[in-house]
Amino acid sequence: MDAIELIPGNSLITKTPEEGRHLAIKLSRLIIKITQPDAAIRQQLRPRYAEDAALLIAIGQTVALEFATIAAANNYWRDQS
Amino acid sequence: MDAIELIPGNSLITKTPEEGRHLAIKLSRLIIKITQPDAAIRQQLRPRYAEDAALLIAIGQTVALEFATIAAANNYWRDQS
Amino acid sequence: MDAIELIPGNSLITKTPEEGRHLAIKLSRLIIKITQPDAAIRQQLRPRYAEDAALLIAIGQTVALEFATIAAANNYWRDQS
Amino acid sequence: MDAIELIPGNSLITKTPEEGRHLAIKLSRLIIKITQPDAAIRQQLRPRYAEDAALLIAIGQTVALEFATIAAANNYWRDQS
Amino acid sequence: MDAIELIPGNSLITKTPEEGRHLAIKLSRLIIKITQPDAAIRQQLRPRYAEDAALLIAIGQTVALEFATIAAANNYWRDQS
Amino acid sequence: MDAIELIPGNSLITKTPEEGRHLAIKLSRLIIKITQPDAAIRQQLRPRYAEDAALLIAIGQTVALEFATIAAANNYWRDQS
Repeated sequence: MDAIELIPGNSLITKTPEEGRHLAIKLSRLIIKITQPDAAIRQQLRPRYAEDAALLIAIGQTVALEFATIAAANNYWRDQS
Repeated sequence: MDAIELIPGNSLITKTPEEGRHLAIKLSRLIIKITQPDAAIRQQLRPRYAEDAALLIAIGQTVALEFATIAAANNYWRDQS
Repeated sequence: MDAIELIPGNSLITKTPEEGRHLAIKLSRLIIKITQPDAAIRQQLRPRYAEDAALLIAIGQTVALEFATIAAANNYWRDQS
Repeated sequence: MDAIELIPGNSLITKTPEEGRHLAIKLSRLIIKITQPDAAIRQQLRPRYAEDAALLIAIGQTVALEFATIAAANNYWRDQS
Repeated sequence: MDAIELIPGNSLITKTPEEGRHLAIKLSRLIIKITQPDAAIRQQLRPRYAEDAALLIAIGQTVALEFATIAAANNYWRDQS
Repeated sequence: MDAIELIPGNSLITKTPEEGRHLAIKLSRLIIKITQPDAAIRQQLRPRYAEDAALLIAIGQTVALEFATIAAANNYWRDQS
């Protein structure tokens, strides 16, 4: 079960902010996957949060938190901009 | 689906705090869009959160979190002020 | 609609912590305003959150988040104290 | 209404962590006071959150957020320890 | 009532991360204690949050927030590791 | 009861981001364990949060908070990448 890879590529460093944002989404989804490893149950839950305004906002907060860490790790991609 | 651009302009750097605030709003909305790509469902949910005090506050928290990252990326626009 | 000014004065810099705190309140209210631009609906919602303990606390969390960013921007007003 | 003082002493600097903690509590209470200026209504709400486990925890999160800012402002009182 | 000591030892500095974690738990409990000083009521609430998954998670978030401040205060105990 | 080890290895330093992520999960679970030391009750609660979308998201937020601290402690594993 713990064989799920929690950070694809095992690094927080990304080339661009856009990639950092995608990594933030992946990190937040992988925590849900390791907490509920049963794909069938996750499948049942998916419409629940994708059609519930409160849960969509809560997902947004989670991604914002993960992204804050990734952005700091990348020095906010300042050199690139 | 993942073709949605999550960070317009692919940069966290903005000219002013006001623009940074607008970027924070956009980032938070784009996470909702990628999580629920069906525009019709998002349309249905919109009155739900725009007329519910708890959800409006939760949106405010999300924007505050996104803005914290953007403000740090821009060194709080200190040179400009 | 996006013509609402989200950061009065377009700056996070304030003279004192007290002014910073007022700015944090304003920032959080302006997000609610831009999300729900209809003043009549906002008026209806106001008693909801001003008389609900959970919502009052949630507003407090939002202000705390906004203030953290403003305080960092002002180097915590250390020179002034 | 806005005449409420939101930061007693208009400073985030305190002599000790203990005083910083008390300031965090005060800051969080003053936001509730400015949002709901009617003392009678606040009085009615008080038993609500002091006897509800979820609200007590939410208050704890608010104080933790306020304290994080105050602790950073004071360089974590490192010189004193 | 305000005679409750909110930070045992009046310092955020601890010898180890483990001790820092225990301090985070204590800080979060002491906020609940000062908000609800009646031990009998706190006793009644205890099973509520210790047997409710949502509240257990909320307690975890509070401790995580307090610990973030304590860990920063201790420079993440880097010299020790 | 307080004999539960809250930080395995008593250190926030990990070799890789992946290990840091696993540590974040462990830290968040150990707070639940110390708050509810009865394994039988925890066992009963497990399906509750693993099958509830809102709780799964809340767990994700907790892990994100713990990971932010661990990532900062490790300087975001920048030297390694």
